[in-house]
Amino acid sequence: MDEVNYVSGRHRIYGIVGHPIEQVRSPETVTAEFVKAGHEGILVPLHVLPDDFECTVAGLLRMPNLGGLIFTVPYKQRAVALANSLGRNAQVVGAINVIARDGTGGWKGEMFDGVGCLEGFRRRGIAFKGKRVTLISLGGAGSALAVAIAHEAPAALRLSDIDAAKAEQVALRLRHINPHIDIDVGAPSLEDRDILLNATPVGMLGDPRLPIAADRLPQALTVFDAIVKPHTTPLLKLAEASGCTIVRGREMMAGQMWRIAEYLRGAVTP
Amino acid sequence: MDEVNYVSGRHRIYGIVGHPIEQVRSPETVTAEFVKAGHEGILVPLHVLPDDFECTVAGLLRMPNLGGLIFTVPYKQRAVALANSLGRNAQVVGAINVIARDGTGGWKGEMFDGVGCLEGFRRRGIAFKGKRVTLISLGGAGSALAVAIAHEAPAALRLSDIDAAKAEQVALRLRHINPHIDIDVGAPSLEDRDILLNATPVGMLGDPRLPIAADRLPQALTVFDAIVKPHTTPLLKLAEASGCTIVRGREMMAGQMWRIAEYLRGAVTP
Repeated sequence: MDEVNYVSGRHRIYGIVGHPIEQVRSPETVTAEFVKAGHEGILVPLHVLPDDFECTVAGLLRMPNLGGLIFTVPYKQRAVALANSLGRNAQVVGAINVIARDGTGGWKGEMFDGVGCLEGFRRRGIAFKGKRVTLISLGGAGSALAVAIAHEAPAALRLSDIDAAKAEQVALRLRHINPHIDIDVGAPSLEDRDILLNATPVGMLGDPRLPIAADRLPQALTVFDAIVKPHTTPLLKLAEASGCTIVRGREMMAGQMWRIAEYLRGAVTP
Repeated sequence: MDEVNYVSGRHRIYGIVGHPIEQVRSPETVTAEFVKAGHEGILVPLHVLPDDFECTVAGLLRMPNLGGLIFTVPYKQRAVALANSLGRNAQVVGAINVIARDGTGGWKGEMFDGVGCLEGFRRRGIAFKGKRVTLISLGGAGSALAVAIAHEAPAALRLSDIDAAKAEQVALRLRHINPHIDIDVGAPSLEDRDILLNATPVGMLGDPRLPIAADRLPQALTVFDAIVKPHTTPLLKLAEASGCTIVRGREMMAGQMWRIAEYLRGAVTP
């Protein structure tokens, strides 16, 4: 994959905005989807610092040849304010990971992490229905996972976040989606669980930490980590060493990339 | 040149900022220079509207993974204010077409259009020394051409701009560079001339107009047009029909692209 990059003055530009940025993979995957579809577009990594987010992104959105943006850590919630309208998932979750032209001069936002995670699990043949699930972190991605999983009717869902009030808010929302799930808030539980999901950035890039305190995980556990880089995070390494089934962040990304590319591309005003 | 574009999260991003933008060719040529040099960088077209210039570009320059920007019509003079320091050419011309990291957290700007034009003519074996030259327009690119040509000791230089006061200012500066050139200001003269240079955007993209009123050009004239798209502008078409030698805007670009790529890339802080 070392081809010369060919971009013309007519190319539509897309960006992924995050901090840090080096771990992102959508510049490869989304651009490949554009090329496959015959769309003259390219997606590039845009490293925006937290203090600059609103100002810099507002400037980007005023460029006529910008087709849209993907948002990653830590901007999925702050980005909501930039959208003129929100899709169905974004409205429930209160976060977006994509903003695209709405065809009337404005911007529409949507959150694809939930469907991406479900699709990643579906491709592995692992269902959430009837399972006992623990989810760590209820930021932008974590909230999206929580809502998507609630629609799949798990037996139990433990929500864990350093901000317990935030977790309680999400729990309330999920009980409206499906009152039959045994939903509670607390420290990450591993006992009597089928699936553990990490949605914190703990373990990203060179970070050696685990999002939970554990030396070993129950072998029956399926462990998912939303982090895309490294490929195998410290949590997933521990899971592998414990004999668990693992599902990677890249599988969540793969499960949503074509949807994101279509959303970005299809929204382009002719 | 239809390869899949491969960009990673570690890529350094560069942009060309202009209005309009579809005519630019540096996204191909500069990125190709980066690839040749083994530099993980990509240059993309950034369409910025005149009302948004200062705000949007300030936001772009705050992105840690932005390596630098090229400026094209109509921003080469406005961009000067964004640089913390100016190169030798930029100081004389009062315009820049590139801004790059200066290695100390700031931005340095330089103007390469002059050397690019000289290099384009040099590759054709055409010298300015002793020639009688007419130059139309003294904006960012035109001023750069005027200064570069003055250093080549032409016999005469007619400066033509809708803003006569601006042309007089440039004339004053050129007389300091070389008092032996017969420099004057006025309407574009074709009689008794060896070289005619157009630095206006008249004739760009679909514009059918000529920058001068003429049905035919003297056959002995060498005609240069700074416009890069179309390849053969209305002025160059008339010149070809009149049997003139023509030099294209792309030859000026080709004469400076590797210098710009080096300036952008070499300035990258490690």
